[in-house]
Amino acid sequence: MKKIINNPLAFVDETIAGILKAHPGHLKRVPASSRALMRADAPVKGKVAIVTGGGSGHLPVFLGYVGQGLCDGVAIGNVFSSPASDDMLAAIRGVHGGEGVLCLYGNYGGDRMNFDVAAELAGLEGITVRQALVRDDVASAPLDQAGRRRAVAGLYFAYRIAGAKAETGAGLDEVAAAAEKAIEGTRSMGIALSPCVIPAAGKPTFTLADDEMGVGMGIHGEPGIEVAKLTTADRIAELLAGSVIGDLPFAPGDEVAVLVNGLGATPPEELYILWNRAHDVLAAHGLRIHRCCVGEYATSMEMAGCSLSLLKLDGELKALLDAPARSPFLLQGGW
Amino acid sequence: MKKIINNPLAFVDETIAGILKAHPGHLKRVPASSRALMRADAPVKGKVAIVTGGGSGHLPVFLGYVGQGLCDGVAIGNVFSSPASDDMLAAIRGVHGGEGVLCLYGNYGGDRMNFDVAAELAGLEGITVRQALVRDDVASAPLDQAGRRRAVAGLYFAYRIAGAKAETGAGLDEVAAAAEKAIEGTRSMGIALSPCVIPAAGKPTFTLADDEMGVGMGIHGEPGIEVAKLTTADRIAELLAGSVIGDLPFAPGDEVAVLVNGLGATPPEELYILWNRAHDVLAAHGLRIHRCCVGEYATSMEMAGCSLSLLKLDGELKALLDAPARSPFLLQGGW
Repeated sequence: MKKIINNPLAFVDETIAGILKAHPGHLKRVPASSRALMRADAPVKGKVAIVTGGGSGHLPVFLGYVGQGLCDGVAIGNVFSSPASDDMLAAIRGVHGGEGVLCLYGNYGGDRMNFDVAAELAGLEGITVRQALVRDDVASAPLDQAGRRRAVAGLYFAYRIAGAKAETGAGLDEVAAAAEKAIEGTRSMGIALSPCVIPAAGKPTFTLADDEMGVGMGIHGEPGIEVAKLTTADRIAELLAGSVIGDLPFAPGDEVAVLVNGLGATPPEELYILWNRAHDVLAAHGLRIHRCCVGEYATSMEMAGCSLSLLKLDGELKALLDAPARSPFLLQGGW
Repeated sequence: MKKIINNPLAFVDETIAGILKAHPGHLKRVPASSRALMRADAPVKGKVAIVTGGGSGHLPVFLGYVGQGLCDGVAIGNVFSSPASDDMLAAIRGVHGGEGVLCLYGNYGGDRMNFDVAAELAGLEGITVRQALVRDDVASAPLDQAGRRRAVAGLYFAYRIAGAKAETGAGLDEVAAAAEKAIEGTRSMGIALSPCVIPAAGKPTFTLADDEMGVGMGIHGEPGIEVAKLTTADRIAELLAGSVIGDLPFAPGDEVAVLVNGLGATPPEELYILWNRAHDVLAAHGLRIHRCCVGEYATSMEMAGCSLSLLKLDGELKALLDAPARSPFLLQGGW
């Protein structure tokens, strides 16, 4: 796995520098932090602000979801590592528009610990902070321990829902409640076909034989449910759809949004081949598809693989998901 | 290179089927062809229609550029193979809104031969057809033989410009002239780091050693300028920017649009690291950057690598490039 990089230790900072040079009208640095960014019009007075953050290597997660109708700010960690609490605090301070801040991020230990510290310190400064943790990966813990589950591509739905709610002028409790409703109604399941290489480490995160796939493997290469024989796109679609549908569980007649996510090296053609069968599985289960997004929404650098996410919709969530969102990293209109 | 597929021979048809199930409100089939699609509102009466086409394996090229402000229809070939002239003719017939059709595609022998046949047959049916061939790859032939050059990611600029011009209600000659102006002002140069596997062939399109890169290699693995030692992102940026700037040549004070394109497996982080340096090279040359797009705009399935494209702008091209364009495959707003 060859990389287009300079010094591996400068990977994150050079990525950020390039992003700021590409999209100067969209993103800007947070004062007093080299590892936090915010939307160009932040702080937005009178609006609840949303801060996210996490390790690098997952674009468009996390910083790609900073924009109108999305998050206001982001703290940026090293590859696959939590950002520092100082950078989270700087982001919270930078985006605070007087109506409080929702910290919305993935359920990972390091991120949680550091966001807890940042939220407490922000509270001492008089900023009201609430937290919502995305935990959509059904492979990472059984349903009766859903609080232990990790976040994967389902982050996308949480950002869209919470971001749109905040744009309506809703208060912090309402924005947090909308985020929590999206989180409670999202389920994801994925497979990995190949590892990625962390630049500073220089070696693959795991190994899989040429005829194997990692079922339920996390986006950092965390162990999943099993290593299985690589099978056809149709069988993979049935496996992913079955795992996701059965977990909430999604019931016939439910209206859902779908995200077919590529982990990095898997071409869109293959994601659509997978969806061609997954669509029919969902339809046979009586699910009504309101919106389907196919593409790279949460990646693991050059990892090959994919995931399927479903969000159960109601009237409120549908309206929020259909609201505009704007970022250089977001596929148009949230298709 | 593991793939999420079923029967390799069904790769293209299953991709199309999945796309239609994902985006039913956006795309529909062209009558009497299983290998041609058009925008859901085609034919648009009173508007010049644009038809593109080419081999599969390059998403979002070609069919991802069908939509409002883009192309009206597309003919779809097998992986890396020209579509049949019958499918091109079906697409031309399907989208014709009474004002003529511009066939806008890449300068490849098979595509040209088949589009020539389709255009002639359409002419016999009373449909006025013009053609414009994108030829932006500076590595594929010297400047004094620019007519032999291949198309790569510069297709994106031609689609945006011609598509926006057609939406203004301009006539066929004007739309063709705008497309030609964009084509004349676009230059691209790329490197490949790894091959892809054509599903039906099952083996890599070429080989490169772990410390090598293919400079100027085409998006089907066509030989480029040389196989060189893999170097840093900064040196690659200087190489690509230098090749592109010197070819038109772009002059100090020129206003340009930039496209930093990933070929498939190269993560966005690396594209931004490359842009971090390429931006400075362009700035040092006195070029003014009106707009910068970074992402996967023309791919080669799971190939790793990237390209840099520049479009020289004038007042007309700037306005057209800033006009709205809408497709499930297009990054929002053409950032």
